[in-house]
This record gives sequence, structure tokens and C-alpha cells, in this order.
Amino acid sequence: MTSLAVNGVTCRGKVLTLDSMNPNVRRVEYAVRGPIVQRAVQIEKELREGVKKPFTEVIKANIGDAHAMGQKPITFFRQVLALCSYPDLLEDNKFPEDAKKRARRILDACGGHSIGAYSASQGIECIRQDVARYIEKRDGGIPSNPDNIYLSTGASDAIVTMLKLLVCGEGRDRTGVMISIPQYPLYSAALADLGAVQINYYLDEDKCWGLDVTELRRALNAAKQHCKPRVLCIINPGNPTGQVQSRECIEDVIRFAKEENLFLMADEVYQDNVYAKGCKFHSFKKVLFEMGPEYSSSLEMASFHSTSKCYMGECGFRGGYMEVLNMDPEVKAQLTKLVSVRLCPPVSGQAMLDLVVNPPLPDEPSYASYVKERTAVLAALAEKSHLTEEMFNTVPGITCNPVQGAMYTFPRITLPQKAIAKAQEEGQAPDMLYCMKLLEEEGICLVPGSGFGQKEGTFHFRMTILPPTEKLKVVLQKIRDFHLRFTQEFS
Amino acid sequence: MTSLAVNGVTCRGKVLTLDSMNPNVRRVEYAVRGPIVQRAVQIEKELREGVKKPFTEVIKANIGDAHAMGQKPITFFRQVLALCSYPDLLEDNKFPEDAKKRARRILDACGGHSIGAYSASQGIECIRQDVARYIEKRDGGIPSNPDNIYLSTGASDAIVTMLKLLVCGEGRDRTGVMISIPQYPLYSAALADLGAVQINYYLDEDKCWGLDVTELRRALNAAKQHCKPRVLCIINPGNPTGQVQSRECIEDVIRFAKEENLFLMADEVYQDNVYAKGCKFHSFKKVLFEMGPEYSSSLEMASFHSTSKCYMGECGFRGGYMEVLNMDPEVKAQLTKLVSVRLCPPVSGQAMLDLVVNPPLPDEPSYASYVKERTAVLAALAEKSHLTEEMFNTVPGITCNPVQGAMYTFPRITLPQKAIAKAQEEGQAPDMLYCMKLLEEEGICLVPGSGFGQKEGTFHFRMTILPPTEKLKVVLQKIRDFHLRFTQEFS
Repeated sequence: MTSLAVNGVTCRGKVLTLDSMNPNVRRVEYAVRGPIVQRAVQIEKELREGVKKPFTEVIKANIGDAHAMGQKPITFFRQVLALCSYPDLLEDNKFPEDAKKRARRILDACGGHSIGAYSASQGIECIRQDVARYIEKRDGGIPSNPDNIYLSTGASDAIVTMLKLLVCGEGRDRTGVMISIPQYPLYSAALADLGAVQINYYLDEDKCWGLDVTELRRALNAAKQHCKPRVLCIINPGNPTGQVQSRECIEDVIRFAKEENLFLMADEVYQDNVYAKGCKFHSFKKVLFEMGPEYSSSLEMASFHSTSKCYMGECGFRGGYMEVLNMDPEVKAQLTKLVSVRLCPPVSGQAMLDLVVNPPLPDEPSYASYVKERTAVLAALAEKSHLTEEMFNTVPGITCNPVQGAMYTFPRITLPQKAIAKAQEEGQAPDMLYCMKLLEEEGICLVPGSGFGQKEGTFHFRMTILPPTEKLKVVLQKIRDFHLRFTQEFS
Repeated sequence: MTSLAVNGVTCRGKVLTLDSMNPNVRRVEYAVRGPIVQRAVQIEKELREGVKKPFTEVIKANIGDAHAMGQKPITFFRQVLALCSYPDLLEDNKFPEDAKKRARRILDACGGHSIGAYSASQGIECIRQDVARYIEKRDGGIPSNPDNIYLSTGASDAIVTMLKLLVCGEGRDRTGVMISIPQYPLYSAALADLGAVQINYYLDEDKCWGLDVTELRRALNAAKQHCKPRVLCIINPGNPTGQVQSRECIEDVIRFAKEENLFLMADEVYQDNVYAKGCKFHSFKKVLFEMGPEYSSSLEMASFHSTSKCYMGECGFRGGYMEVLNMDPEVKAQLTKLVSVRLCPPVSGQAMLDLVVNPPLPDEPSYASYVKERTAVLAALAEKSHLTEEMFNTVPGITCNPVQGAMYTFPRITLPQKAIAKAQEEGQAPDMLYCMKLLEEEGICLVPGSGFGQKEGTFHFRMTILPPTEKLKVVLQKIRDFHLRFTQEFS
């Protein structure tokens, strides 16, 4: 609140300025929707207004947004959502009986039989039961308790809530949270917002973005000098790096977390997105239980899932859940209280989640179409994952690990010294310069590696593999051409 | 992280305990879904399991959840939502053309024409435009800029986001936020979570829960001794108190906020809920602009609206928006960045909001049914507001202000000294004892006044007026009987 004298009149400055706002919020960064995406939106506007560009559309390969890239929703899911939205349709014989059955079950669990009523803050009970059964089935029968399931507004909401619970202390006692580098920037953003200490551990690009416990230990020990490490976050399959962790690796991580008394957060939103031969998704919970009661009865853990990824890609519904394990009952009561302040996750997102965890069964009328649609999406993603890796690795100056899973490739790019110098002059990350130029020249929107974190002196970008195959081929070709041009221009 | 020796084996305690969790979260309280509601849910379970009670159902009059109380959704809104969810229905001639037109417009604004795509973090552009036009129309032509509109996950989300931006400083420089007492506990919960200083100003029960600037000034001056007051929150129409502010009162508040350099937050989610003769909803923005450029060009303000209240009661969709005025452009950029971390509000909630601000027009086929349904809901609420006030005021020991607006009554109850003493013995708020007993004996779930704040030594409860008229009459009669019995029991 400053006072300024302008033309003899004293006028006060704004109450809320960059200087007087929450400093933690200022520190937040979120590259996936950062300056490059803002410029992309601007360019789209310019195109609509008739401004001439070397391209006719902007391809937003910056974000894992399947439907925006043309992927069609699963028919059954949307039929049920329509029935829930407008229950008069339950009388319509165009809808299959299994869709009606699901819709009736969801509506019966809603106050006044309406998805317009608030639900319990933890989520609708029968949906939490369905989630628990889904987890049990996924994990070969290891029990899951619906009381440990919290439905959420996308996985992001649950991750932020869990981190919020965990952060305390001041100075050297401040909670430290271990996150991978490269990371998904929700984590760094949430930690900045909460004023927690971010502890970076590096994935090994030379070993297919593998995670090594030696590196975890190095990062932890270094951090102990200035904060209190309490939390270890893992993303598997990896975002932005696309690796799928082996069973051994997961065991190592669990052992490490137990030894070091860390709360484990397992971000498993890409659990259906595994493409590479020999790779398989292992849930942290399953591995934990298979390691025996010494682990399964004590390690505190939360795992996260979402309706936004996998084969359904229903991002807009903001559905998700977390399962908490071995959480102190008093803390669980606090968690329930905390989520109650926001009343409830969107009920249509809860309904969508229910369909994801409780899809048509083999003896139901919609089963065949559901399986067909699901399989087609996952097969196309697998094909695109291979295509992307192969193509990038033909370009001199681009090297690319296999996209084992998830929806992204995170190739390493060699940038000429002159380009690096130019970026530094302009106070810009070199890979931001690269991505901005690519956007301006080719209309392709990627996210620079600097937005996810990377080893000093290396440069990357994240690109989704979501565009339809033919379009993806064009995108890859354009990036190839651009990269060669860029290299030449700055040589 | 404590170490315990049990049976000779050293075992560590939990990472996350009441003692080691975020202390701000521990301080959060949210009575609307607090212990009384948990008990209500438990009783419902007991009833289902066949436990004998003096009643057959629990009536949850604790929360403004219209559909749960049997209110039907607006047909047109749900038709459009069904069309958006399952666009194959656009070919179905059972749906009116105006519903299809709205659905097409929303889908055209979605990535890949799917509500399953992420939207822009600030919300879908054409919906923000519709919101701006709605505000302009509501406020008699005062301009509204879609760039100042932020769609949100219910109003709660926007309120918390705005408070988060505003909180900074340590010790005596910590941001103070003025909230009414009684208040809606989202505010106190958010302030506890953010570690901001809550500054209480009291509404005057004897003047129909009116707001007086003298009281605002008293509260502000007292607070200046220990914090930096920067924000003034107003709820109009009032929750839990049901008053509707006069134009003069709003002018006074605006003058006060300007003089004292406060950021004004106007919670106007009940803007269609005005029932008392002579009362009218005046938006803070309209009054601000009518006070002239001296005010309208400088006062920093955010106002909030939601799909959850008014005549639609679509709580489950978690739709809402805020309009910010005179916000520093650099701070606005920070706000946009902050909301981008959560990606976007639920798109179906955004669609619902679009219908609320852009309902059928007089020349469209759904207009007549829309108006009929809307009018019926608001007329019933008006009737119930009068009924409630009249009935409560016949009970000795209950006094009740007129329910001028919103959806609640907040009557004052006189409790016998013995009841107060008993509650104090049990470490319970006396009105919590009262409400718990009411729940156990009559199956009616209310929220004790202590959950909202009240003048020392006074006791209240909040009850929604949402039950259908005939059921509401029964509820009022039961509360009357209970109150008399309670008074006698403790005399």
C-alpha cells in the first residue's frame, strides 16, 4: 500500500500488487500451461482473424488432452452420463440396458436421485466401493477398503490435498518432498504454493529414465542438511519421461521409503498406458503387499488415479481418486474434514470415474463395443509411441528414449552454442527459445524441458503422442525439418 | 517421527500424525459438514440396518442442497447437459431446438468438440462472454469484460483462490481478513488453512442482521494492533443470516473499503433468492459504478456466483465464476497462472453455468417451461421463508428474524442455564448439545450457531428452508415440540 502524489492529489496504490501478493504464489510455475501456451492461443486467434502464417492450424502437443486431439469418448461412458444428466432418457429404448442399470445405480446413490445434489465430501459411497473392487481386481485380490478411498477433482486435487496435509515445520524443520527430475510441474507448483522444500532426485536418461536408489539416497542426504525430508513422490508410468518402472525398482523404492521413514505418494494415472514389450504396470500397492506384512502393515502411502488419461482421456470431467494406506486414523479424520470444506468433487466426474472402474462386463450388451473402442485407442497409442521414438532417433541432434508408457516423449535436443548464447542474452531458457521458434514457424506447441527440470546443460522438450497417427507423422516431420534448420541457422 | 520400543523391538511411529501434520489444517473447522452431519449419516445407516428410532428418516436441513430436498432440476438445463454428454442425441427430435443450439455452441467451444477435453484454465471463452453479458444485463448495462471473468469449481474454489492471492506478511504484518459474524465457515476455514488473521465484525441481530459501518470500523481499528487488514468479505444475501442489504448499506461498505484501502470480496451466490417485500438484490458492482468513477475506477473487488443456489440448485456440478475489478494486470497474470495449475474447472459445471447465465429467450421453444419451473421454485422458497419466520416466532424461547433472502433461517434460541452448564461440563458448545439432542430425538439435522460464530452468550442454529412445504411444516412443528421439551427438561 503505497501513497503517490500525482498532480497534487494523493492517491493510494493498489491493495494487491506483485509486491504485496502472496509470495508463495509468485514462486509457482506451471510450464504445461505457461507462456508458450499463451502464445499458442494468441496465434490461434490471429489465424482466425486472417493473419497469414506459414501454417493453418496450431497443433497443441503440449498437454495430455486426448479428446482435444480428436480421440472419441467411450460410447458407453457417455451414454450413462447422458442418462444421469437427464433421467427422462431412462424411458428411451435407444439406450442399452447396462447403461441404464449403471445410471440408475448412480442416481439412487445421489441425494434426491440427482447428480445436482452435493455428495459426501469423500465421494459417493457406492462409487468408492466400486473403486475398491477395481483396485482389488487390478492387484490380484489384495484387499482394498472403501473407507481409504477419497474421490477428487482430478488427480491434481488429491495430490495437492495430500501434500498440504504433510507440510509443516519452519526453517531446517520444514518438510522436504522428494520429486523426480524431470517432474510433472504440478508437484513443484504445489510445493512452492505450500512453501515446502523441493528435493530433486534425477532420473537417469542414459538408462531409459530409470530410477536408482543410490540417487534417491544422495538427494535425501544432501537435503537433510537444510530440511526435514518426509515425502517421496513417484510418477509411474513417468510423466514427462514415459518410462515404466520394473518390479525390482518399485521394491527398491519401497524399501528405501521404509528405511528412511518417508510417506510415499504414487502417481499412477497412466496405469493403462504401457506400450513397450516386456514392460508391465505394477501398482505400488500390489508390490508393497507382496513384500510382506513388514512393509504392507507400516508403510504410509497414497496412490492416485484419474479419469483424464489411459484409454478414456476424460480430462474435462475432473474425476479422480486416491487410496490411502496405513494412515493414522486421527489424520484421516483431519483429511476428511479438510476435503469437506470444498463440499464435494464434481458429481459428474464421480460418475465418470465409476464407469472407468466398473465398465461393462462380458455378459452385458455394451461389452463388445467398449472393448473394441478401448483396444483401438490403446493400440493406436502403442503404435504412435514406437513411431515417435523411431522417427526422432533418425534426426541428428535429437535422441529419444523408448516411450514405454504414459503419453509423452521427452527427447533430448542438442542445441548449437550460438543458440544457447542468444537465449542467455535474452534471459530465456535455451529450450524455450527453441520451442517458441518452433511454434512461430511451424505452429507446433511443445513444452520446453526447462519446465520439467533437467540435468544442467541438457535440453529437452515434452511432446504428447496423442495426435492422430497421420497428423503425428506430419508433426514429427515438421519438427525434424525445423531442428535441422535451427541447427544450421545457429551454426 | 517418534521411536517406540515395543516388546523389545524398536519401531518407529507414523510419519504423518496429528502432531506432525500441517498445523493450519488442524485449525480448520467446517461445521456445515462437521460432527453433527457425521452422526446424521451414521443414524441413516442405523435406520437402514433396522435399528429402531423415534423417526423413520433423517431430514438434513444442515446444508443448502436443493435437489437432495426433492427440488427438480430445470428441464432445459439437463437436456443441454445430456446433449453435451452424448452428442449423438443431437439427431434426436425429442430435444427442443434451443437446447440443441446451446449444446452445439458449447461443444464447438470445446477441444475436439468434447466436454471431455480440458478447457482454458480461466474457463471456456464463449462462456466467459455469456457471463459478462449476463452481468451487464443484471446491472443495467454497466460493462463487464470477459477477461475479468474466471470460471471456477463452485464459488468456494474462487473464494479460496482469491484469498490465497491476498495473504502475505508475517507477525504484525500478516494479512487480516474481515468477515461477518455469523459467517459462512468456508471463510474461517480458508483463513485458518492460509494462516491469515480472521477479523470478526458482528452483524446486528436486533436490526435484522444488518451491517453497520461503525462496527466495521471498530473491528478494523482493533485489528490494526496485531495485523494488516487488507480484505473485507461480505455475503449478500446473507448466509447463514438471510438478510438482504439495502442500497445505502452497500454504499457505506464501499465507501469504507475505499477509505481504508481494503480489497472487497462480495459473495453474491444467493442473488436470485430474495423474498421479503421491499427488499431487492443490488450487486456491489452496480452500486460501485453508480457511485461514480472515483469509486468504480479504483476499488479493487471480486464478486462470486455459483450454479449451486438460486432457483437451479445444481450443487453437484460445481459450477461458478468470479468477476475481478480494478485488479493490477500483473496480479491478474499471477491469478491466471495459479488457476492453470489445476488445469480447468469441470467442463460440465462450466456448461451448466452457461445455461444459468444464458437461459432460453422469450422467442425460444423452452422459454415457457423454463420460466414456469423457475418461478415455481422461487415462489415456493418465498412461501417457506415466511412460514418459517412465523412459525418459529410462535415458540417461546425462539426468536427469528425475517428470512429476507438466501436459503436459511438463523433463529436465536434461549437455552436453560442447566443445559448450558451440562454442555460446558462435557466440553461442548451448548447449541451443539441442543442440535445433537434434536438429531437423536427427532431425526432433524441442523447446524449449531457456534459453527458460524455468534455473539458471546447467545445461541442459534442454522436451518435451510429447502424441504418441501409440507415436510417443512412437520420439521418446524417437531423443532417446536423439541424446544419446549428441551426447555422443560433442563428447567
